[in-house]
This record gives sequence, C-alpha cells and structure tokens, in this order.
Amino acid sequence: MAEYRAPTRDMAFVLSDVAGFHDMAKACGHEEVGDDLVTAILDEAARFSGSVLAPLNGSGDRTGLSFGSDQTITTPAGFADAYRQYVDGGWGSLQFAPAFGGQGLPFSLAIPVQEMWHAANMAWGLCPLLSQGAVEALSENASEALKAELLPKMVSGQWTGTMNLTEPQAGSDLATIRTTAERDGAHYRIRGQKIFITWGEHDMAENIVHLVLARLPDAPAGVRGISLFAVPKYLPDAQGEPGERNDCHAVSIEHKLGIHASPTCVMSYGDNDGAIGYLVGEENQGLACMFTMMNNARLTVGLQGVAVADRAYQAARDYVFERQQGVAPGATGASAIIRHPDVRRMMMTMKALTEAGRCLAYSGCVGVDLARAPDLDEDQRRYHRRRVEVMTPLVKGWCTEMAQEVTSLALQCHGGMGFVEETGVAQYYRDARILPIYEGTNGIQAMDLVGRKTLRDQGQGMTELVAEMRGFAEAIAGDAAVTGERLDRFCQSVVFVEEAVRLVLDGQDDANHAGSVAFNYLMLTATTVAAWLMLQSAQRAAARDDGSDPFLQGKRVTVNVFIDQILPRCAGYLSAIRAGSEAIMAMADDSF
Amino acid sequence: MAEYRAPTRDMAFVLSDVAGFHDMAKACGHEEVGDDLVTAILDEAARFSGSVLAPLNGSGDRTGLSFGSDQTITTPAGFADAYRQYVDGGWGSLQFAPAFGGQGLPFSLAIPVQEMWHAANMAWGLCPLLSQGAVEALSENASEALKAELLPKMVSGQWTGTMNLTEPQAGSDLATIRTTAERDGAHYRIRGQKIFITWGEHDMAENIVHLVLARLPDAPAGVRGISLFAVPKYLPDAQGEPGERNDCHAVSIEHKLGIHASPTCVMSYGDNDGAIGYLVGEENQGLACMFTMMNNARLTVGLQGVAVADRAYQAARDYVFERQQGVAPGATGASAIIRHPDVRRMMMTMKALTEAGRCLAYSGCVGVDLARAPDLDEDQRRYHRRRVEVMTPLVKGWCTEMAQEVTSLALQCHGGMGFVEETGVAQYYRDARILPIYEGTNGIQAMDLVGRKTLRDQGQGMTELVAEMRGFAEAIAGDAAVTGERLDRFCQSVVFVEEAVRLVLDGQDDANHAGSVAFNYLMLTATTVAAWLMLQSAQRAAARDDGSDPFLQGKRVTVNVFIDQILPRCAGYLSAIRAGSEAIMAMADDSF
Repeated sequence: MAEYRAPTRDMAFVLSDVAGFHDMAKACGHEEVGDDLVTAILDEAARFSGSVLAPLNGSGDRTGLSFGSDQTITTPAGFADAYRQYVDGGWGSLQFAPAFGGQGLPFSLAIPVQEMWHAANMAWGLCPLLSQGAVEALSENASEALKAELLPKMVSGQWTGTMNLTEPQAGSDLATIRTTAERDGAHYRIRGQKIFITWGEHDMAENIVHLVLARLPDAPAGVRGISLFAVPKYLPDAQGEPGERNDCHAVSIEHKLGIHASPTCVMSYGDNDGAIGYLVGEENQGLACMFTMMNNARLTVGLQGVAVADRAYQAARDYVFERQQGVAPGATGASAIIRHPDVRRMMMTMKALTEAGRCLAYSGCVGVDLARAPDLDEDQRRYHRRRVEVMTPLVKGWCTEMAQEVTSLALQCHGGMGFVEETGVAQYYRDARILPIYEGTNGIQAMDLVGRKTLRDQGQGMTELVAEMRGFAEAIAGDAAVTGERLDRFCQSVVFVEEAVRLVLDGQDDANHAGSVAFNYLMLTATTVAAWLMLQSAQRAAARDDGSDPFLQGKRVTVNVFIDQILPRCAGYLSAIRAGSEAIMAMADDSF
Repeated sequence: MAEYRAPTRDMAFVLSDVAGFHDMAKACGHEEVGDDLVTAILDEAARFSGSVLAPLNGSGDRTGLSFGSDQTITTPAGFADAYRQYVDGGWGSLQFAPAFGGQGLPFSLAIPVQEMWHAANMAWGLCPLLSQGAVEALSENASEALKAELLPKMVSGQWTGTMNLTEPQAGSDLATIRTTAERDGAHYRIRGQKIFITWGEHDMAENIVHLVLARLPDAPAGVRGISLFAVPKYLPDAQGEPGERNDCHAVSIEHKLGIHASPTCVMSYGDNDGAIGYLVGEENQGLACMFTMMNNARLTVGLQGVAVADRAYQAARDYVFERQQGVAPGATGASAIIRHPDVRRMMMTMKALTEAGRCLAYSGCVGVDLARAPDLDEDQRRYHRRRVEVMTPLVKGWCTEMAQEVTSLALQCHGGMGFVEETGVAQYYRDARILPIYEGTNGIQAMDLVGRKTLRDQGQGMTELVAEMRGFAEAIAGDAAVTGERLDRFCQSVVFVEEAVRLVLDGQDDANHAGSVAFNYLMLTATTVAAWLMLQSAQRAAARDDGSDPFLQGKRVTVNVFIDQILPRCAGYLSAIRAGSEAIMAMADDSF
C-alpha cells in the first residue's frame, strides 16, 4: 500500500503563481497570509494527512462500516480518533468567521489542505466536506439566533453536518421532493425519508446537524415550494450541549462500489412525533439556500478528483520506478518500467491531468474569495462572481472526469497487480467513480454550463473568458517558456471555444440542442481553460527557474505533455458539438 | 439486477453483412452453414446464456470463491451445474476438429456464442475461454499421441485447460521465466511457481490440463529458451481417465477488483517429486506454441469487451426507459430520463461503441477462418493472415478500451444507484477493468501493432488496409446510406491513418518513438477501421431496409452517432502521434 506525500510544492506554486492567491489575499485584507504562513499550514496538514489519515484509507476500505441493531453506525478503527485530532488541530475552522470560532483565513487557503484530506482518505474526508458545506449554508442563510446556537460547535468540528436533498423519486430533479414540514410553534416538524445521505449517522462526533429540504403544507408546487431546515440529531439544550434525541434516524446504509468507510444512509425523519427542525432562511427559499452550499461543494468535489488522481499517480510512480520488466530502448539489461515510453506516456498523462486539475480547482476557489473581496468594487466582484459561476461546472465536471482516467491509468501501470485489491490502487479507482455522480452529475454540470452560464447571460461570461485567454496568448507570444507551435495549438482551441459558444447560442431553436452538446461543450471549455492555466504555470516556472530546480523544470515538461497529448482532444469535442442533436435524437424507442 | 437478452439480430447481421461470414463459409467448404443454422445456434445459445449463465452472474460476484485447506477451490452455487449443462450441450466443441469429437464449425461461428457467455457471466466464461485456447495450442503443436490422449476430453469440455505464463518477475516480459523442466524418460519434471492462473483450480470439471512455460537446464537464455508443457492435474490412466494426482497445486487465490467468481491462482509445480509434464511442440519453441493460443485469446478478450459492454448497455437501457426524472425538452410532465438529450447521448455512445466493437471483433475472427481456408490460394491466405495480424491488437486493444467507457457510461446513466452494488451495473464496470490488462496489456498490443505489424513489414499490412478503406469510400460516394459530409470525415480519418503509418516508419531513428506513439496509433487505426465497418453496416442496413424494421433503421442512426461522436477523436490521436517522443521522454527522474 503506497504512502501519501502531499505535493506541497505544487500546491503552493499553483496557489501563488497560477491562481493569484496573493493578489486575492491583498484584496481581501489578508496581507498577513504570506508564503511563510501558507507553507507552514501546508506542511502541518501534509504531516497530518500523511501520518494519520492515509494509513487508515486501505483498512477503512476493507473493514467498511457496521450498522448496529440500534441504528448506530460504527466507523472503522482509527477513524474517530483521527477525527478527534482533526478537531483538536483546529483544521475544521480555517476559513470560517472568527465570530463563531473560525480562524478567518481565505476559503482558498483551506483548499490545498482539503485536497490532502481527500487524497489521504477520501471516505473520511467527506465528513468534513459535508460539514463545511452545512456551515456555509447556515452562515449565509440562518437567523442570528440559529447561527449562535449551531455554528460554534460546527465550526470547531465538534458537531458535523449533512446535506439531505435526495429522495427515491427525487434525484437530479428536486421538484418532486415529498418530505414535509409542518409549523409547530417556533419550530417545524419534519417527516419523510431521504436517501444517499453522506455521513448521515456515525460515531465520530457528539452531534450531527442535518440540513433537510422539505415542503410546507401550503407550499407552491415544484422547486419554488421547497424550504430548508436544520434538524439536529440531538437538540441543543440550554447550555448549547447535545440534549434530547431528535426523531431522525439512519435506517440503513448502502453497500457501494467505493468509499466503503463513508456511511451513505437512508435517513428517516419523524417516525414518531416528527423531527424538530429549524427553518434556515425564508420559507420556500430552500433551494437557493442549499445552493450556497452546493456551489462550493461542487468545487470541492472537483478538488476530490484532483486529490484521488494525485494519490493514484503517487502509487503508480512508486511502482514504475521499482518494477523491472523487459529491456527499454537504449538499455542493455532489465529496466524499470518507467524507462518504457508507453509507461512514461501514461505517467506523464496522469501528471499533466492532475496538475491541470489542480490549476482549475484552485483558480476556481480563489475566485470564490475574490467574488466577496471587500477591497474590490462591486463591478469587480460581479466579474469574479461570473467567473466562479463558469468555473464551478468546469472544475466539478472536468476534474472528476480526469480522475477516472488518472486512476485507471494508475491501475494500468500496475499490470495484473493493479487488479488485485491488496495493491491498493484499485481502491482509488473505485472511490473515484462516485465523483462524476454526486453533487450534481456531470450531465447536470454540463447543462448548468450551457444553460445558466451561457444561454442565460447570452454568452457574456464565456466571451469574457475567451477574450482573456486570447489576451494571454498574445501577451506570451515569443516567450521562450512555450514553443510557438504549442501556443498556436492553444490559440486554435480558444477559437474552438468561441465557435462552440456561438453554436450554443445559435442552437436555441432546437429544444434538444443544448442537452445534446452540453457534455462536449463542458469538456472543450474546461480542457482549454486548463491549457491556459498550464501555460501560465510554464511561464511562471520558466521565470523562476535557474536551471537547478527539478520541480520547475518538470513543470515545463508537464505543460508540454498537456499541450501535446491532452489539448488535441478539443478537436473531437468541437466536432461532436458541431454535429448537434440530429443523430443523438433520431433513434426510435424500439430501435434501442 | 438486469436480465441478459442476447442481441442475436445484431450478431447475425454483423456476421453476415459486415464480417463476410458467408463468403468465408464457402471458401472454407462450410456451405452447409447458412442463415438458418446460424440462427438456430444463436437462438439456443441465447437461451442458455440468458436462463442459465446470466442469473448466476450477480450471485457469483457476491459469493466469490472459497479456497479450502486442502487446496481445493469451491465455485459459487450453480456454477458447476451450469458447466455440466454446457458440456452436455456440446457448446465447447463447436469449432473443433471432428477427429477429436468437435463439430467442425467455423471458428467465427463460435464467436457470437462466446460473446453471449461473457456477456451473461464473464467470470464463468473465462473457463471455456482458457480451455479453448489450450485446445488450439495442443491441436496445432502437440504430437499425435499427446493429442489423442488429451484432446477428446478437452474438446468435449470434460477437462478444462489453463495457460501458465506469468511468474512474479515475468509478466509482460517472459524472457525471465524461472520455472524449470527436466527430462525424465518420456516426460519431463516441472518445478516452479506461476501466478495469475485463471481457473487454475476449481470444482467444475474432473481434470485440468495446465499448459506451462518452463525452461530446460541447457536452454538458451531469454525467450528462445522457453518450452511448453502440458501438465494435467490428474495424469490420464490407461483408459484415458483421470488417474494419479500430479504434483501441481493451487496455493492461493487473489482477491480482485472484479471477476470474483473466476479463480486467479498462484500455482505451485513440483513441490515434491516434480510435476509430470509432456512436451508440446519442440523444445525451446514454447513461446511460438503459446502464441498460437495467445493470438486467438487476444481476439476473444476483445470479444469479452464487446460482451460486457453490451450487458452494461442493456442494464442502462432498462433503467433509462423506466426511471423518471425532470421534464424533458418538449415534454409537459415527468419524463423517462431517456428523453433527456444528455442521457440519450450517453446511450447512443454506448450503443455505437458496442456495435462498432462487435464489427471489429467478428471481422477479425472471420479473418482467422479465412487465413486457413482450404479453397483459397496461398497468396489469398497470406493476405488474410496479414489482416488478422493487424486486426488482433486492434480488436484486443480497442474493444477493451471501449468497454471501460461503455461500462462507465452505463453506471453514470444510473446516477447514484449506479454506485450501489446491488444495482448490478457496478459489477460490469469492475469486471471489465481486467480486460485492458490480461492477454497482453493494451500497451503491449500497441507495441505489437507498431512493431511486428507495421515496422517489420515496412507498413505493407497497414498500407493494404488504408487502400481498402479508401476504395470503400470511393465505392460508396453518393450512396444514400451515408451523407457526403460524414463520408468526408471518414476519408479524413483514413488520411490520418496514412500519415500515422508514415510517421511511424519515419520515426525509426528515435528509439523511443515507436513506444511513445503506439497507444494513440492503435486508437487512431482501430477507430478508423471501426468507422469503416460501421459505414458498411449502414450501407447494408439501407439496402435491406423497407422502412418497417426498427433494427435496420436503428443501425443507420447508430452509425451516424459513431461518425459524429466517436470518429472525431481521431484528430486528437493524430496530434498526439505528431508530437512524438520529445515531451514524453523529457522528464528527469527527480521531477516525477
């Protein structure tokens, strides 16, 4: 089983040199967060992820969870203790408001830290991921009283949080939610069943605050009639400590392909008197409230893709430098398989995809900070908000798709050993497979990009993006960091994106056009944006490089591989978009 | 858990209208094998696969195997009985020589039948797959005496066969095999350990004949010093029945990502007196003997890709017509998700990839029959041999890669349910993952295509292929079955292949060139050949279609989707090939 060594050097580089962390920190009044503090935090998180979380990943997968007759869930050995250390270390509170015990650091500084949790132990990392989403939803939407009651314990991590959207008939489409909420004095009574509730029940924390979407008796039909409620497992008592047990329980857990140590619960609310819930935000505004949580969660699911890809890359790297097989070109005896060009192609592809994913994810997350930067004017903030809106589906969609490819390549590099579970790499492959599904399937992400992020503003956000990429290409023309030929290919892809935006805008007469082209539109755009950010990496690496630094030299090679091997896929995406909906929609039902 | 209904209509269509089965049957003196016989065999196989094998697939996955303290392996409930029915039904002997009890039918007629076994139950299907490979290796290489002793029981399926190549240090590179064989009178004594031995031990048959690669004491080093031996678990007695227990045993089985019901054994030979083995072919010619088995096994592993892809497609099809979610474009109420264009894109992609894979695999297998057709002259047979040699890595490589994509898309169509094991689709995804690895990894296939199948004959086989595709395109220009624009795109891809062949031939001064471009070269060639065969499908479907047949109409739509959505990937493959080895090989070790 491979160890995990957090790539802190690349994390710090991407934050500062690609994602513009320092400019953001200035605009957000975070001048104190310089390179030293970033490095200190990353190093400490690297230690915790490598020594505490990573060693539990394989055993957690093998042991899985046990669901007790009393509806409790026992996590694998070591998980609860690791969580206690996480809380004690203050890791859960990095980016939250000091008013509730947070450390007030930028959201984007918590991102590499969270990447480490997910790389080390994705199943475990989901508990903080969901909890932080719940904190965000409460911070932005709850009443002051509710915030004061719940947030201090949640920010510290003593209490965890969940996100209860899905019901058996309501998955991608939340309009059909049936869980009900009835007014009962100052609170509400919640009744219904939710499925696929990540970390819905467990033994790692003293309380769990469920955020639940439900419908009031007099609510309008559809998504405009959904409200959001906080439903604590234990109702807070007068001292704010866990008091009376609420009427909500896990009734079963799923047996899944991966993330075996992350409980995926069927939750039942109100089997007896009705679970007591507290309204978050306004009545019937639940979906909007949930979206404040879901958008950041989408970015962090993309980040999970980067994380598991990096872990798989590391496992493959350890193997291909060790494993000897055959005689490589130019060698005279047995060669480590990294000497074989096809293995090297796989390794470089993995490295290029993973580092490009990191560029996308970190840039998206710095944008979240910029979109609320106090030192920027409203126009600038609005610009960043548009950019984050475009970036969110790109990060979620592309980084989780590339995670499938990277974990599969890592398995492939192991040959037959990759298919044997004890090698460990198969777990990354299995774990990664949830990523294109949860927090909005990648089909939903693609529809979001094409619908809300392109058609709704008539392409404004996308056109800005194209213009910026074009400006960048003009600015670096002649720069020794990138050959003219590679830059030309990037420019070609920018033209592709431009054409795709036009095709999307022109396709509105055909009701099936947007959905037919959406996925390829997302892949085309994200691959091109990733290339842009990778070229920035190369430029910055070249500027810093004095010829002695393997990291900076490697970065430039990796960027070249991205441009040579990954970017050319854009031609295929564009062709598929050009084909529109005709063939996709032409099949009669009885021909399937 | 989805049922399996064999796509006999498409199987018969691809055999007759794409792969040229009937011309082959004539050239092979098989005039008796007309459409009626083909249909009768496919229907019966469909019944057996659907009613006997498919219902055991999920339970076999969940139960797995038990390895006894006496080194026996117990297969899941129902497996042994299904195997008995298979033997009783004569399914194992279809394509083998009547001299040993076979039915003497074409090899390629057994191919759709075997596709059904693998689609229904890939883990179970591996036992016949390996057995048939062993029969081929013995038929072509063993002495008459050894054939008479082993083949009747193996052709009937009463005895099964295995293929023992891999050792811990010898995977893709067999030069380093350490298992030894010592002459001992008329036979040999085999000593050593083999790993990854599929169906190396089990309870489904009364005897197992292991084909084992080993090295004689005076053998030359490397692959020229390897000999092949038949090592029966029980030595045949004077009556040809299983007699004395041989000194070979399974010592453990692997815990794998998929194909849980297929025992993957560590086999130990000669722990006591040495296992008795019979030489197959000449001493030191073992690798050539094994290759007669491996080449067909590579085609049938490609076929497994088609099979599992089809099974996954069927599961997704059942789900997307049933599952309602959201309101589709143009609909007024809840819609089955097949009405959403992005879901339809996934379904059509799966269908196009699977049917294209079937075209590739069946065409390759008809070529195996043609390469030994008695009624053809030697030039014609040599031509077909060259074509089979090119097709083998294309079928193995491309069909197993597309199986990854199709099983993943099938899982994706299920949303969150796809990640839950009891849905069943996750099993197809897990099972499929072995396919790009065994019988020569796809990297090995790609090197085979670039090395033995392109460089060695200076591109002759590939140039013939390009010329034929070009001739086809010229012949169907103006045919109403295909729009001119789609035909142009196909012609473009043929030009890409031609350029790629030239780049491969021109790249020989760079020792790393072939390996760097091999995988993309395989994908480019196979995708283009698949498009060629799909266009033939469309043409034949158009010629047969009177407007009333959903199968024929659907076929034309599927071909259009292949040309629109899959073929454009070729531009990306070619760009990656053009980039050569520079960036792939540039990274210093300490930059990884």
